Amino acid sequence: MSTTDNELIEALRRIAGPSHVLCDGDLAAWEQDWRKRARGKALAVARPASTAEVAAIVKACAAAGVSIVTQGGNTGLVGGSTPDASGRQLVLSLQRMTAVRQLDPENLTVTVEAGCVLQNLQDTAEKAGLLFPLSLAAEGSCTIGGNLATNAGGTQVVRYGNARDLCLGLEVVTAQGEVWNGLSGLRKDNTGYDLRNLFIGSEGTLGVITAATLKLYPRPAAQLTAWAAVPSLEQAVALLGLAHRHLGAGLTGFEVMGQFALSLVARHFPQMRVPFLDADSTPYCVLLENSDSESEDHARARFEALLETAFENGCVSDAVVAENLTQAHQLWHIRESIPLAQAEEGLNIKHDISIPVSRIPEFVRSTDALLKQAIPGVRLVNFGHLGDGNLHYNVQAPADGDAKAFLRDQEERVNSLVYDAVQRFDGSISAEHGVGSLKLEKLEKHKSPVALDLMRSIKQALDPQNLMNPGRVLRA
Amino acid sequence: MSTTDNELIEALRRIAGPSHVLCDGDLAAWEQDWRKRARGKALAVARPASTAEVAAIVKACAAAGVSIVTQGGNTGLVGGSTPDASGRQLVLSLQRMTAVRQLDPENLTVTVEAGCVLQNLQDTAEKAGLLFPLSLAAEGSCTIGGNLATNAGGTQVVRYGNARDLCLGLEVVTAQGEVWNGLSGLRKDNTGYDLRNLFIGSEGTLGVITAATLKLYPRPAAQLTAWAAVPSLEQAVALLGLAHRHLGAGLTGFEVMGQFALSLVARHFPQMRVPFLDADSTPYCVLLENSDSESEDHARARFEALLETAFENGCVSDAVVAENLTQAHQLWHIRESIPLAQAEEGLNIKHDISIPVSRIPEFVRSTDALLKQAIPGVRLVNFGHLGDGNLHYNVQAPADGDAKAFLRDQEERVNSLVYDAVQRFDGSISAEHGVGSLKLEKLEKHKSPVALDLMRSIKQALDPQNLMNPGRVLRA
Repeated sequence: MSTTDNELIEALRRIAGPSHVLCDGDLAAWEQDWRKRARGKALAVARPASTAEVAAIVKACAAAGVSIVTQGGNTGLVGGSTPDASGRQLVLSLQRMTAVRQLDPENLTVTVEAGCVLQNLQDTAEKAGLLFPLSLAAEGSCTIGGNLATNAGGTQVVRYGNARDLCLGLEVVTAQGEVWNGLSGLRKDNTGYDLRNLFIGSEGTLGVITAATLKLYPRPAAQLTAWAAVPSLEQAVALLGLAHRHLGAGLTGFEVMGQFALSLVARHFPQMRVPFLDADSTPYCVLLENSDSESEDHARARFEALLETAFENGCVSDAVVAENLTQAHQLWHIRESIPLAQAEEGLNIKHDISIPVSRIPEFVRSTDALLKQAIPGVRLVNFGHLGDGNLHYNVQAPADGDAKAFLRDQEERVNSLVYDAVQRFDGSISAEHGVGSLKLEKLEKHKSPVALDLMRSIKQALDPQNLMNPGRVLRA
Repeated sequence: MSTTDNELIEALRRIAGPSHVLCDGDLAAWEQDWRKRARGKALAVARPASTAEVAAIVKACAAAGVSIVTQGGNTGLVGGSTPDASGRQLVLSLQRMTAVRQLDPENLTVTVEAGCVLQNLQDTAEKAGLLFPLSLAAEGSCTIGGNLATNAGGTQVVRYGNARDLCLGLEVVTAQGEVWNGLSGLRKDNTGYDLRNLFIGSEGTLGVITAATLKLYPRPAAQLTAWAAVPSLEQAVALLGLAHRHLGAGLTGFEVMGQFALSLVARHFPQMRVPFLDADSTPYCVLLENSDSESEDHARARFEALLETAFENGCVSDAVVAENLTQAHQLWHIRESIPLAQAEEGLNIKHDISIPVSRIPEFVRSTDALLKQAIPGVRLVNFGHLGDGNLHYNVQAPADGDAKAFLRDQEERVNSLVYDAVQRFDGSISAEHGVGSLKLEKLEKHKSPVALDLMRSIKQALDPQNLMNPGRVLRA
């Protein structure tokens, strides 16, 4: 470490306290990403306890020309929250900033610090008799700051939107180390440019989100889950339309699962009973959730009316409504076990894409065909949040093939084929996971040059030294 | 007109056609704002028919160094869509760009050009059996481009959000005359910075919105309206909480009206029967709307359950549910007649503010007291979208006073007093009308300096020549 480095570390220790600036020992928890795909090397890890400390740290780094990788729960999937290999970046971990600053039940808002774990926020809302609806697999360890920095999605988006839609205001430390207090609890505020949404989803490249004011909702009186077998993806889309009409805003979940994806669950977790798992008559199953502000009886009656119409219209061939919470959890557990079952089956190529809902059947049919033609025997694991047009359209090696060789030889080809198809169908190559470093090159290929130029202008304007998570989202 | 000016006009005529570039004759329709508060002087009015023509016009103006005021229906209330007095600005009217490019019922989206009048869009959606929920007083003449440029609000925000929340994608001509096609029909897309929300609400100062892809919703099966007398503003807030819990997303309208505001309607429009208009026992009335995806019977039962609980809790002293659509329209008509009744009563000072819902009672009590102390006899016309924390907190001259003199002598003092109070209560000085030129100085006083610096950096980055609606939102 150079003298200048030592001076910076000393300055950081004065700001955050000596025990909260780590340079030695095993820093893997901060240097390695969640998927263990990449291990970087940090100059140091700083763990500030307050917004003022964050601001002072950013100023010290700016003065020293040291770049900052802000990190929450480090559960991102695109290599956006770990340092590069240079040993020249500071990891700014916000995990000590966990306070719930204010919960305002009449305003239906809560203000929390960025390091608050999502599940803790959900629990805080629940204790107040309210709902914070963001829900995703990593909720036990991801933080609200990371959720906002990446505009996280999850399973309730069809009703409540993404993390962006749940946020009313932010507190941000700018690249210059200034504190912007934009912690608004207002649902209407037209006083100038939408800075909040600019920082949301910018993956730590424009500033550091240190706190947020978020929307809360009344808890529904009842929540029911149904599982339906559908004869085709077209009919799954038709069922979605029916569900919107019958349930209105009661429709809080609409997940589609391909037969092969479900067969992997049945194969690797035989203790789970997957309903309607019959290759010929059930190419897809759909999981629906109905949240009702009235009562369980009412929720059940509405579900039954929906499914009756769906049977008559031919968009459902069989269906079951969970009798109780245990059954509901079992159904959701099947859906959530697909990624694990995939991993048990072997290495695979993952895509997190979105397509206009109306075009999904055509996209899947034509892209399935292209892939099967390019790679005979390839197996398609298709599932996702159909209600939002978001598919996890994954590609598994042929059953008898060498999965490692498949990944090595075919990943680039498969990705190109899938992303080119996504572009032809006016879709997105990253629906909910973001860009990070993993999708940087793909973004340059598939995003409009005008949009990329606008993004670069904004980055240059807000972070002219290029010290905020450089090389993520945009090339360094 | 100089030679350069003439050359520019000729170039514009080649782009848009000679009859669509106006320099002579009465240009009042484009030069004067809707409230007739200001009359500017345009160099010319250009009326392009396509995005390509808009792009070519912006390029020609950029080359000539002529600034552009983009205009939709010209119904804005803050002086944001008319030219200044210099005679050096081009008015770019998008009123000829009215096409509905695509309606996708399965994806629940519609793509329209910026000049499409809001009501035409509502009608288009209705014909397809769907709902475009943005609704506001000017809907017969305002355009969707203007709605997005100002992030319009209105009466359905409590359920559907502002214009921003209804938009999935934009097509924008940048300040350099490039076309950004961001017309996404996607509900999830995390590929980089949120350019869409940056242009939304920027009031034509960063680029020209030429088209948008918007969300549609299923039409509710029934819509009911109720009118309730509440004993205090605190109880109005309590009723709002009850309504959220009982109706969930069925709550599509929640308007509060002070007794004095209603008495003006009764005085100037005696043919309207205002329910529960009794000064002593009814300081406030609330109008509630319940949209139901099931049936009118169900909507009525839910409303009755809500009102029963509200009576028991003491937050409602009297209530009526409209028996039919005519009665519902009559109730809404009373609410919508308040601004006209105010105008009949005489000149007044208007504010469009928002406050966290929980703090509204305290804000109104303390600010009422401050105003009455400062100006004995002053009359407070208070009404608005309580469900969104948005009040039209207006100030009428004393009953026996000279309203003109009141406006002349007291407007600045009243504004300062109200806006200082808004700031103490963490509110916004412009909830839904925007900044334009009218609120520019107030914004500089009440917005955080860090936020203003961020805004200026963005403006400089995207419009370095300062040719897009200069002097609006930010000082020129």
